[in-house]
Amino acid sequence: MGGDFGPHCIVPASIACLAEYPSLHLVLVGQAPLIEDLIAQSPGVDRARLHVEHAGEVIAMGEPPAQALRGKPDSSMRIALELLRDGRVQACVSAGNTGALMALSRYVLKTLPGVDRPAMMAAIPTQSGCCQLLDLGANVDCSAEHLYQFALMGSVAAEVLGVVSPRVALLNVGSEDNKGNQQVKLAASLLQQAVGLNYIGFVEGDGLYRGAADVLVCDGFVGNVLLKSSEGLAAMISARAESLFKESLASRVVGSLALPFLRRLRADLAPAQYNGASFLGLQGIVVKSHGAAGQEGFKSAIRRTLTEIHEDLPQRLHGRLEDLLL
Amino acid sequence: MGGDFGPHCIVPASIACLAEYPSLHLVLVGQAPLIEDLIAQSPGVDRARLHVEHAGEVIAMGEPPAQALRGKPDSSMRIALELLRDGRVQACVSAGNTGALMALSRYVLKTLPGVDRPAMMAAIPTQSGCCQLLDLGANVDCSAEHLYQFALMGSVAAEVLGVVSPRVALLNVGSEDNKGNQQVKLAASLLQQAVGLNYIGFVEGDGLYRGAADVLVCDGFVGNVLLKSSEGLAAMISARAESLFKESLASRVVGSLALPFLRRLRADLAPAQYNGASFLGLQGIVVKSHGAAGQEGFKSAIRRTLTEIHEDLPQRLHGRLEDLLL
Repeated sequence: MGGDFGPHCIVPASIACLAEYPSLHLVLVGQAPLIEDLIAQSPGVDRARLHVEHAGEVIAMGEPPAQALRGKPDSSMRIALELLRDGRVQACVSAGNTGALMALSRYVLKTLPGVDRPAMMAAIPTQSGCCQLLDLGANVDCSAEHLYQFALMGSVAAEVLGVVSPRVALLNVGSEDNKGNQQVKLAASLLQQAVGLNYIGFVEGDGLYRGAADVLVCDGFVGNVLLKSSEGLAAMISARAESLFKESLASRVVGSLALPFLRRLRADLAPAQYNGASFLGLQGIVVKSHGAAGQEGFKSAIRRTLTEIHEDLPQRLHGRLEDLLL
Repeated sequence: MGGDFGPHCIVPASIACLAEYPSLHLVLVGQAPLIEDLIAQSPGVDRARLHVEHAGEVIAMGEPPAQALRGKPDSSMRIALELLRDGRVQACVSAGNTGALMALSRYVLKTLPGVDRPAMMAAIPTQSGCCQLLDLGANVDCSAEHLYQFALMGSVAAEVLGVVSPRVALLNVGSEDNKGNQQVKLAASLLQQAVGLNYIGFVEGDGLYRGAADVLVCDGFVGNVLLKSSEGLAAMISARAESLFKESLASRVVGSLALPFLRRLRADLAPAQYNGASFLGLQGIVVKSHGAAGQEGFKSAIRRTLTEIHEDLPQRLHGRLEDLLL
């Protein structure tokens, strides 16, 4: 039910994924009549692999997480997470209220042993591929210990997503040892001692986009600001490019030719739509699709989820954290 | 002597500014023989308005600020700041080592009464004009009181730069009152009580580029990450656009037409080259030009400095802070 477009985007994206992955089964949780109406608009859906689970309540995008947690026992988000907790599904994907999804996930699923706080991680496009950035907003105040745990979890998750010996770095304001705040400096000394981790040191904001790291760790305040400001800058560059091209007749000709390229570029780069964001450190797989994601974005989130199921990400995280933390 | 291009950029930019502003006098501080050689390459310079002050030492770009402060009494940066302290010049502009410039500025010039820490502020281009963002890296750990002081200083500086009743906001991870870390929440309550300040609340990362505020306040860690990641993203978008246009013959034709537009766009948007960055809260005017700035960038920094001299920024800051803090 969540995201800017709700079931109108999620239902067709789900149906497209069923066609793409013949062994995939999906459960759509939300207002059953609306969802059934939308399914009926697509002929030939394999209903043996597409189930609808009714939920009487919806968590609004702007609703405070505490209210969602206490006041809505029948929300679609909560019921979906309960299906996961009860083993009736293997993962949960949502485009809804991020704060509520995190709060409900922690409450319903619980964290893995040794994990103080789950983190949110997403792929950011870089000059050489992509970088997994975490935390993206779940934790606005982080200790060195939290950053350390995020780095361990991010490394395992990047391996699961196909990166061999991922280069793990801490986001900082300089690359020298004496740079940064206390949390970052202390996290660096913890990471230098971690066995079996490819920790490469500090990386600055521009290093992210240069592809200097495969996993980049920061607190949720910094990560949220970085992600949203990047989205804002990419949108502004698109808008400026369009208006620049429209300025004169000559440039209008150029523009009409160049705009499809610019749109492709914009689609390539929109950081949060690049893929879904993984919640790491929970006893279960939860993937957050960007609220503004269209059908293609939501399909990306489902694909990321399938990889995490296939690789059994929570179990691998648990094993790795047990070695290093417990 | 500072910046990626040193006097080879700064000398011609200075000479161009002398031609542009007939009442401007400049003192170039650094290795006199090198500077004189470069001046000699431009015929017709009005040497009555261009002085050279020799300095026997140079602070390297990567040198730790503490070392620059203690070990180099004859550095060009320090001598320039001493000229300012002694009233022989009205402002100091540098493209050198930012941390060293801040440390030396505090040591040589001292802060204004009531100011705990100076802040670094620069204009960021937005969809509707520009936004003054501070702090940009001088202070990696900030209390609510520091953020409050930055907001007051940023507001006065934006007025000086021509904004009427600047909209002042705190950078945060959400716009609701309950969002953010403790420092940001407490700073918000201080700002709500400040008299004569147009405080508009929280703004998120994407709001910066949408033009939601005229002055946006954050700690130096967040500001540094935001600025550098924006630079990195803008550079990546440029590079991707160029390679996208070169992919096929058809696109090569489009590209050859569109590249000049893309370059203009890139020049318009390069955040740190948009202008110089002001150090606020010192007993004197210090402007930091981006290390990677070319001649046009350095001229922008000089222009910003001239505005601050004309409007007597430190005196206006002092008056405003005296009203609100002392």
